[in-house]
Amino acid sequence: MLQWLRHYKRAQLPGDISAGIVVAMMMVPQGMAYALVAGLPPVYGIYASILPPLVYAIFGTSMTQSVGPMAIVSLMTATALAPLAASGSGLYLVLAGQLAAMVGAVLLACGILRVGFLANFFSRPVMSGFTIGAALVIVSGQIRPLFGGDLAHIDATSTEIGLASVLALVLARFYLAPALSAMGMRKDWADMAAKLAPMGVVIIASAAVAVLGLHVQTTGAVPPGLPQLNLASSPAHWRSLLQPALLIAFIVFLTSMSAAQTLALKRREKLHTNSELIGLGAANVASALSGAFPVTGSMSRSAVNFSAGANTPLASVITAVLLAIALVVPNGALALLPLPTLAATIIVAVLGMLELDTLRQAWRYDRGDAMTLLACTGGVLLLGVEAGVIIGVALSMGMLIWRESRPHIAVLGRIAGTEHFRNIVRFPHVQTLPEVLVLRIDAGLFFGNVEAVSSRLADELQARPATRHLVLVFSAVNSIDTSALFGLLELNASLRQRGIGLHLAEVKGPVMDRLKESELPGRLNGKIFLSTVLACEELSERVAAN
Amino acid sequence: MLQWLRHYKRAQLPGDISAGIVVAMMMVPQGMAYALVAGLPPVYGIYASILPPLVYAIFGTSMTQSVGPMAIVSLMTATALAPLAASGSGLYLVLAGQLAAMVGAVLLACGILRVGFLANFFSRPVMSGFTIGAALVIVSGQIRPLFGGDLAHIDATSTEIGLASVLALVLARFYLAPALSAMGMRKDWADMAAKLAPMGVVIIASAAVAVLGLHVQTTGAVPPGLPQLNLASSPAHWRSLLQPALLIAFIVFLTSMSAAQTLALKRREKLHTNSELIGLGAANVASALSGAFPVTGSMSRSAVNFSAGANTPLASVITAVLLAIALVVPNGALALLPLPTLAATIIVAVLGMLELDTLRQAWRYDRGDAMTLLACTGGVLLLGVEAGVIIGVALSMGMLIWRESRPHIAVLGRIAGTEHFRNIVRFPHVQTLPEVLVLRIDAGLFFGNVEAVSSRLADELQARPATRHLVLVFSAVNSIDTSALFGLLELNASLRQRGIGLHLAEVKGPVMDRLKESELPGRLNGKIFLSTVLACEELSERVAAN
Repeated sequence: MLQWLRHYKRAQLPGDISAGIVVAMMMVPQGMAYALVAGLPPVYGIYASILPPLVYAIFGTSMTQSVGPMAIVSLMTATALAPLAASGSGLYLVLAGQLAAMVGAVLLACGILRVGFLANFFSRPVMSGFTIGAALVIVSGQIRPLFGGDLAHIDATSTEIGLASVLALVLARFYLAPALSAMGMRKDWADMAAKLAPMGVVIIASAAVAVLGLHVQTTGAVPPGLPQLNLASSPAHWRSLLQPALLIAFIVFLTSMSAAQTLALKRREKLHTNSELIGLGAANVASALSGAFPVTGSMSRSAVNFSAGANTPLASVITAVLLAIALVVPNGALALLPLPTLAATIIVAVLGMLELDTLRQAWRYDRGDAMTLLACTGGVLLLGVEAGVIIGVALSMGMLIWRESRPHIAVLGRIAGTEHFRNIVRFPHVQTLPEVLVLRIDAGLFFGNVEAVSSRLADELQARPATRHLVLVFSAVNSIDTSALFGLLELNASLRQRGIGLHLAEVKGPVMDRLKESELPGRLNGKIFLSTVLACEELSERVAAN
Repeated sequence: MLQWLRHYKRAQLPGDISAGIVVAMMMVPQGMAYALVAGLPPVYGIYASILPPLVYAIFGTSMTQSVGPMAIVSLMTATALAPLAASGSGLYLVLAGQLAAMVGAVLLACGILRVGFLANFFSRPVMSGFTIGAALVIVSGQIRPLFGGDLAHIDATSTEIGLASVLALVLARFYLAPALSAMGMRKDWADMAAKLAPMGVVIIASAAVAVLGLHVQTTGAVPPGLPQLNLASSPAHWRSLLQPALLIAFIVFLTSMSAAQTLALKRREKLHTNSELIGLGAANVASALSGAFPVTGSMSRSAVNFSAGANTPLASVITAVLLAIALVVPNGALALLPLPTLAATIIVAVLGMLELDTLRQAWRYDRGDAMTLLACTGGVLLLGVEAGVIIGVALSMGMLIWRESRPHIAVLGRIAGTEHFRNIVRFPHVQTLPEVLVLRIDAGLFFGNVEAVSSRLADELQARPATRHLVLVFSAVNSIDTSALFGLLELNASLRQRGIGLHLAEVKGPVMDRLKESELPGRLNGKIFLSTVLACEELSERVAAN
């Protein structure tokens, strides 16, 4: 907490200042746009960008994380509030703040209870599929503001401004940085300038609307100062917001952690998962206190912060101060932003979230993961973004269990004249004894594969009726959970009944330490051998002696 | 399908006949009692014990499985139907049959889609906790029939019969078999006789009620023949039954598979998970066609079937025929069973499900699993048996992710003069180089631990700022999923930026085969070495040359 301030070095200041300015200029159009996605007046996006990063600077651990509004979290906010109040109504604004308070409370509770590991319930392909689905939902929601009406009744002026903005943003996205570089600008400066294109487009569009006197919906007058948190609403509302708050908190943590993790690796920093939860929770409570809506750390914004030179959270503090000034001083200018241009910034920003590269690589590496990604996208599109989170968790877990339920098990034989044992399928000339069956299990044993392993062992024993001794080689068994322990005890009991010895070999240190606490070593109808070769030599002697 | 019939041997007949008779005598009181638990007239328990085992004999794969009513599934049936109709009403009976049809359809669909692996979502401790909770719920539901009224208004006659039955059953359970053995009966016959005690108690109680003319509620007159399936009910009812049907199907499959698995191991048989699903699905459809309620394979009854000598499903066919005869011939006798005695048989049977041994062993072996068990019991007691299933899945998955999110990672050093590498914590005298960091990851890499591994690697690198080469030893990495692949690509990119080489060593064959399909080998900022010693020798030369 504020450790960075105690060790602050003067050399860090220029980077923090430049990053603070760049992110503030990025934040104005982005924050306003994402407030629109959340169904709130655009200025609420600025409200959500002042206190939250300040509070995160105090409680968070990532040095370069930029906390504020973010597309998916805004979409989930809109989804949560839509059934409860009309978008933009007084009740809607009140409930948005309450939702942020609840999200903050959930995150704080998770941080205090140290359950940060829960973020691991989402696999990358599922996260990617979820993001793609959410991006498509957000884009479809911006069609109406872009055209100033639905597709059957488009408004000509809005459409012109909107499409011109999209064109300008797309050109800037792909060609501005190379063009500036070609003109001799330093590459990192050129990249930075390209990131500020949305701000430029917004300024040009606002100026054009004002100068030409175009008739188009704009953001509208902004009252000075921050709105206040209003906690008075019916218990039914609080109850309805509980599940969305849990799901949003999950997504907030997930997106924020993956951003922070990537940056920490680049900066050789250490992240504390549970402190991050507390930082994000406090930021959301701060957003609630500003009367705004749920916020999170964003990958794209944090990356800009990082590459603009941010060394410490002072960059975020500077961003927050600049935005606070913008809210008070050139207040009138904020009222003139044309909504079609904001819609254009959302669409272009969100299309950047359609990273199909994950799908491409997953398709090549693991078809099942690629199908899971597509299923999650489909779930978001067909059943909604909240159902999408639940589907995502279910699919991640389903894939995990499916994969783990088919562990690799090899029947081993000895390479003649050596102490090495190999899979008889890959090495057909290895030596085996009909009375001694040696199996290597290439997976940790846990509830998800204990039935599969038992059933596979039963098959192997059925195929080799002469077996008198079964040796399980545990060299690749990293852990044995309680379910698997019971599975081994039952296997042992049934083999004893059938007069077959059960032996273990090459049990790893930590696994053996745990097994010693159990009843297995005492009940085992056989021995625990240090190595496979010792097991086979002793057992073949015993068989020969009979 | 009916393979057992083609290969039937005459020597198998005596065993099948004796098992068929024993199970039929066990089934009469048990079936009637579990029908009561399901909120149905007792005779429905007999209805549910005729067609389902016959159909299972055709479609199932387990040779000794006994399919019929079972306590937990009956409890879940009652829970599902309670909000929709008054217990025992006409609608209730109709909906019970429909629920069985839906459970059957779900199981058949799972069997056809080959998703039997889904049974692996429940860990043993969670299953045990769930069973204990359900048993307590069932016992509490039998207090009223046992005393013939609630505890403030107990009926003296009912209470006397009920408590006498409990006493007789408990004595029989613990002392009958030893007493008969002591009197010279063969041990297995004595055990069998003890299993038939409920039938004896029921007969004695019925006779006492009839002879002494006691006033107590009895099962009542039984119409001859089977009721019919009635599929006409409102769509709203079908919808309300969908979630319970899914949960019941899950529990049916779980309990049935664990019974079948245990018996198959004992009998050297092969089980086919997906065929089992089809057998159980067909049995539930058959139960629906009998106008009865959901059924499953029961561990306790199947064990009796097995130890009474059952060799093939012919035993179940004999049981079914005997029960069908009982339904037609001594029909009047079935009407005289006193309900307090049936309640007593439920209570004593279900108390046998309170196997605290799992809790004891889990407590010793893995405190976390023991706490999970207790949490699942608490969930069932506080939130109900349906919520209990969901809580059970969530807890199983939560424990899995929690455990996997903290993989064991060892920093390795070389034992001087050898090619062996060991954990520097356990072997403080091993040799290390400040520029070459060698880490062994003792876990498969997947979405659940990729963040933890990245963060651990970042910590180790931060603690050793001289590191120029990072060698990851993959000897214990059994698999790498897509999330982990992306994690490795990101690690590689950030290490490249920092000028640190990333090398892999001892990658397993199947893992390497998969990695070759990915972009990692091409992008790797380092080499893939066959062994740790080769990696260290080459890298230390490179470091020395610099």
